[in-house]
Amino acid sequence: MCELYCKQDTLALRGKHIGPSCKVFFAADPIKIMRAQGQYMFDEKGERYLDCINNVAHEVVKAATKQMELLNTNSRFLHDNIVEYAKRLTATLPQPLSVCYFTNSGSEANDLALRLARQFRGHQDVITLDHAYHGHLSSLIEISPYKFRKGKDVKKEFVHVAPSPDTYRGKYREDHEDAATAYADEVKKIIEDAHRSGRKIAAFIAESMQSCGGQIIPPAGYFQKVAEHVHNAGGVFIADEVQVGFGRVGKHFWSFQMYGEDFIPDIVTMGKPMGNGHPLSCVVTTKEIAEAFSSSGMEYFNTYGGNPVSCAVGLAVLDVIENENLQGNAVRVGNYLTELLDEQKAKHPLIGDIRGVGLFIGIDLVKDHEKRTPATAEAQHIIYKMKEKGVLLSADGPHRNVLKIKPPMCFTEEDAKFMVDHLDGILTALEEVMGTKNDSVISENTVCRTKVPKEVHVELPNHSATESRENDSRKRNGVCSDQHALLSKRLKT
Amino acid sequence: MCELYCKQDTLALRGKHIGPSCKVFFAADPIKIMRAQGQYMFDEKGERYLDCINNVAHEVVKAATKQMELLNTNSRFLHDNIVEYAKRLTATLPQPLSVCYFTNSGSEANDLALRLARQFRGHQDVITLDHAYHGHLSSLIEISPYKFRKGKDVKKEFVHVAPSPDTYRGKYREDHEDAATAYADEVKKIIEDAHRSGRKIAAFIAESMQSCGGQIIPPAGYFQKVAEHVHNAGGVFIADEVQVGFGRVGKHFWSFQMYGEDFIPDIVTMGKPMGNGHPLSCVVTTKEIAEAFSSSGMEYFNTYGGNPVSCAVGLAVLDVIENENLQGNAVRVGNYLTELLDEQKAKHPLIGDIRGVGLFIGIDLVKDHEKRTPATAEAQHIIYKMKEKGVLLSADGPHRNVLKIKPPMCFTEEDAKFMVDHLDGILTALEEVMGTKNDSVISENTVCRTKVPKEVHVELPNHSATESRENDSRKRNGVCSDQHALLSKRLKT
Repeated sequence: MCELYCKQDTLALRGKHIGPSCKVFFAADPIKIMRAQGQYMFDEKGERYLDCINNVAHEVVKAATKQMELLNTNSRFLHDNIVEYAKRLTATLPQPLSVCYFTNSGSEANDLALRLARQFRGHQDVITLDHAYHGHLSSLIEISPYKFRKGKDVKKEFVHVAPSPDTYRGKYREDHEDAATAYADEVKKIIEDAHRSGRKIAAFIAESMQSCGGQIIPPAGYFQKVAEHVHNAGGVFIADEVQVGFGRVGKHFWSFQMYGEDFIPDIVTMGKPMGNGHPLSCVVTTKEIAEAFSSSGMEYFNTYGGNPVSCAVGLAVLDVIENENLQGNAVRVGNYLTELLDEQKAKHPLIGDIRGVGLFIGIDLVKDHEKRTPATAEAQHIIYKMKEKGVLLSADGPHRNVLKIKPPMCFTEEDAKFMVDHLDGILTALEEVMGTKNDSVISENTVCRTKVPKEVHVELPNHSATESRENDSRKRNGVCSDQHALLSKRLKT
Repeated sequence: MCELYCKQDTLALRGKHIGPSCKVFFAADPIKIMRAQGQYMFDEKGERYLDCINNVAHEVVKAATKQMELLNTNSRFLHDNIVEYAKRLTATLPQPLSVCYFTNSGSEANDLALRLARQFRGHQDVITLDHAYHGHLSSLIEISPYKFRKGKDVKKEFVHVAPSPDTYRGKYREDHEDAATAYADEVKKIIEDAHRSGRKIAAFIAESMQSCGGQIIPPAGYFQKVAEHVHNAGGVFIADEVQVGFGRVGKHFWSFQMYGEDFIPDIVTMGKPMGNGHPLSCVVTTKEIAEAFSSSGMEYFNTYGGNPVSCAVGLAVLDVIENENLQGNAVRVGNYLTELLDEQKAKHPLIGDIRGVGLFIGIDLVKDHEKRTPATAEAQHIIYKMKEKGVLLSADGPHRNVLKIKPPMCFTEEDAKFMVDHLDGILTALEEVMGTKNDSVISENTVCRTKVPKEVHVELPNHSATESRENDSRKRNGVCSDQHALLSKRLKT
């Protein structure tokens, strides 16, 4: 557990040998983590951090070691682990989703999902949601507005971006009489436009809840209607469960299941928590789609995908979720945390919206409740201050103003209380300064001794443009009261 | 170590739950492997198989377990393992190759390599070699003629296919006065044609030795000349070392190094043996290319890439290669095996060519030494017969007639002798039957009790077309004698 290099040397070596596009958390003052246990991480000085962002963390070392000592090889040989794991995984899904392809990352899974969709009927086009992120591979950056709008890449012709079904700051809001239909009709319109240009829809892809997009939970009924439009166009529905699967929503094992039994995607992709850090991911689809893929005559071979060690790790994770009743924990702790946060919302004008299900919660920070102006710099300030208190949060969404909470599944009520208490203190101090400073953007010299990273300042000039766009959309939708129905409440498990 | 399912049930579950595009080895009679030790694999009955195809297999369990017990998290936190591993890896490479991006599979590495190349000067086109295979992702199938010609996918406009620099059955052969220049000039011509169409070359990509393409070793000087042409066009040279790196060639750690110190790729991708089965891969490039990538403003984040456990595994593999002198073993056993195979070549008319370096060897099987007609069905027969003897080989190359030998790095001289003795026996029996049968294609009823998989028969009708194409190319190049200079001899380490 001793350091190989002092933190300064680690940083210097990182600067020298690791690509500068690979960012660290808290760039101005990155954390060096030496060890972890459950939801706690410890730095080189032994300082403890409560981890609110790192998804599942379970004890699966034993299973991995046992299998590594025995055998690791590829899936061209028969092995019981791969078939047992496929059997167990598909048992968590509705019946038609019965065929697995094992891969090594959420990105590999989503890339394969697109290949399956395109092979199915020979269509090419993909409909994706605004602000979506589906992975770091070339084929996925193409369908990830979260990425391609930040870089130089431009939208490809075969990509269609539907509005994010965000009823808090999107095109149709909580005051709309039928936001689900309105958002789904946007998809229908995209399909009709594509058909008019002679294009054909291969797939609609969406996270069952948008994560990087700002912890967005689509309104009830939206996915059903979208699936209908997409199926009518000969396309398939891909549910990306990479960030939100494996019991995180509590009541259901998969997030898409909370929208009702009448919604079944054609392809589900999974990853991240699946191997508790071990590179492991999967695509599950129907027999029909799998057979169409096979009929191309092209073999699919993934050297590491579905190897006996990865599958042993995956099986151990399933066991832990079940044996330790982590879904029950997600319900209990998630509900408790949401209650605490709702109290904070009543108290702090900076909190515009609390939304989420189970252990997947977003805190949308605003500078102004009526205009819902994103409090981007404030969000950055808060995550740095929380870090000083030993709590790891991140800020995401198109405006980087949504605090993301997606902790390890073993997160406790005490952890929730600890986190919220610190958040309360930081919000109180910040609002005091903002109040006395005539609602200006916080200055790093006054309240934040930790240097705010450059990116924040880069984003600030865009605020006015954003606001005017939002005002337009608000005019279209009518002025809505602040008494919006919290989706998190409707969907609470 | 006991079976969870009997072999028949494993097969049935696989049929039900694993995508039919995922093929097993020896489809007609697949092997169920229960455990492995070094170069030996054991099936459910305890039968031993000598593994000639599974690359590095080392003992790295201890390092993985130790790190897993301590911590596994992502690279957004500082950690010594990632920087130490980057330092150790880049120390094996020529100086300008100093910046690493850690990924989870050779495919992820190659996809990122293409992104780096395209970002570098904003060019888009890629030159690839005929029969090349660079991975299973959408972006890689596009540049893998080995794949896209088998499926329905057609060549994209931005992809240019240069002839494989195969001096045994390619366009310019061992009798050509300067095959290296002739093959490199083909690349030059592609660049000139692309420029005339207003296109710009982002990258030339090639395995340092073509693996799936038929164990092809380019003639000395070829890569230098290609690099010059590509650099003149503003493109970068990507060396794919996924299958051939990590000391397999013996004298050098990386295969590209055997072409001389005056050849340095701009990007090197690595994978497969890197983690001894643990999903681990990497892209290494120059500071200049890394900075250009970063200047796009787009972060690169790979959830599992470079995590502390993967890096601990990678470091352990480097230690084992060094401490057990596996490069020395690759030289010694590789040379011995090549000598044994050369003796077999003198004895068996079915062997047209033996080529390779270190523990990367190909046996090109022919029905006819002069025409070099690929002995495809015979190759399939041999690998099934070898399996019956407990030796695992595969057949690859565009005609699937090249026996691939790329065993774990701990392969011994005794293993080499064991393998060659069985090959000798099988070739002798096969040639006897073929002799009495008037050089017809083998029939599964007479010599091969194991059912030959369907694919072989599917390929047979193409032979005549292939032959006539080859005859044309032979006419262009003049008839060559069978006394070709073995590249493997020139390059023997």
